[in-house]
Amino acid sequence: MQIAIVLFDRFTALDAVGPYEMLSRVPGAETVFVAERPGAVRNDSGSLALVADRALADVPAPDVVVVPGGPGQSAQMENGELLGRLRAADAASTWTTSVCTGSLLLAAAGLLTGRRATSHWLALDTLRTLGAEPTGERVVTDGKYVTAAGVSAGIDMGLTLLGRIAGDEHARAVQLLTEYDPRPPYDCGSPEKAPAAMVETWRARSRFILT
Amino acid sequence: MQIAIVLFDRFTALDAVGPYEMLSRVPGAETVFVAERPGAVRNDSGSLALVADRALADVPAPDVVVVPGGPGQSAQMENGELLGRLRAADAASTWTTSVCTGSLLLAAAGLLTGRRATSHWLALDTLRTLGAEPTGERVVTDGKYVTAAGVSAGIDMGLTLLGRIAGDEHARAVQLLTEYDPRPPYDCGSPEKAPAAMVETWRARSRFILT
Repeated sequence: MQIAIVLFDRFTALDAVGPYEMLSRVPGAETVFVAERPGAVRNDSGSLALVADRALADVPAPDVVVVPGGPGQSAQMENGELLGRLRAADAASTWTTSVCTGSLLLAAAGLLTGRRATSHWLALDTLRTLGAEPTGERVVTDGKYVTAAGVSAGIDMGLTLLGRIAGDEHARAVQLLTEYDPRPPYDCGSPEKAPAAMVETWRARSRFILT
Repeated sequence: MQIAIVLFDRFTALDAVGPYEMLSRVPGAETVFVAERPGAVRNDSGSLALVADRALADVPAPDVVVVPGGPGQSAQMENGELLGRLRAADAASTWTTSVCTGSLLLAAAGLLTGRRATSHWLALDTLRTLGAEPTGERVVTDGKYVTAAGVSAGIDMGLTLLGRIAGDEHARAVQLLTEYDPRPPYDCGSPEKAPAAMVETWRARSRFILT
């Protein structure tokens, strides 16, 4: 089994590394970070680079595809070569997945048309305009497409998918070994839980966040 | 404000990237990944490299130091130069922090002697032999030392510390923007919650995991 995680300029690091830390523990699987060209790829803030070890073109048929999000996704939505490679990878994949605004890339590639899916809460309207059917769930599975809400939701997506691939017992052991027993110090992690004024402030600013 | 995240061979990626995603959002702060030498640093499984943009020696007095854990920490406990650099950084820091077995490095550097601290649940006994006073909490603050339990606990540590540095309102906004409203698909993320047989299995194997 081969798992490919797709990097692009100005991705969000936790979007990629959250599911990576779970899915890379599929027994016997090879996990590989890919990008249009091999080499270091800078994240949204510019202060972290992850290394893409291989070119997307050289990993043409992964079993699992993971597409993170981040402010850089908007530029990639115009990148016909990348979208074409995502379509080609999807044609052979067992699972095609995304975190955060990564689902906008899958949708732009035409892969989520008419499918239930999710994205960062600030991107759900855009996801709908791209033909998907957004839901409010944190992790959405529709056939082989597994999409996660914003940033940290990729950990839940990764652990969920790990259970589907490697079995519940193995996934539980990975949860124990990564001590994934979260205790956020605040309870403000979704638009339903945050103060309405904070949600509205960020909705108003979202055109800048997402571009 | 300068935040330095310390990489070393065979670190665990989420240990570093979890707190990074929170702490890098301190307004106006510079976050920098450091290692003994600049360049790509491979994680525990070898399938991911993060780039250390600067040498530890060139970032001598960060305000916040973050030390991740991972299987590679045991080799670093013998690395006098690294431990010396951690001591020097700590001498000037406002906050000295760790995730997972990163606390063993802080303890080996003599920084946690007599202090309440935590680590990966499989490393708490070792932490005690190094002079710290382990607790069962997920995030432990003792003076300027903030230590987190295993792997994913670094996110809780990062968000907690973000609140201390930048204020609760800012930290809540970051929680909302990163949708940190976790919903693990299982409830097996701590030794208290996991089946006893699973816990015992991993305790028996832990000498291989931690080395």
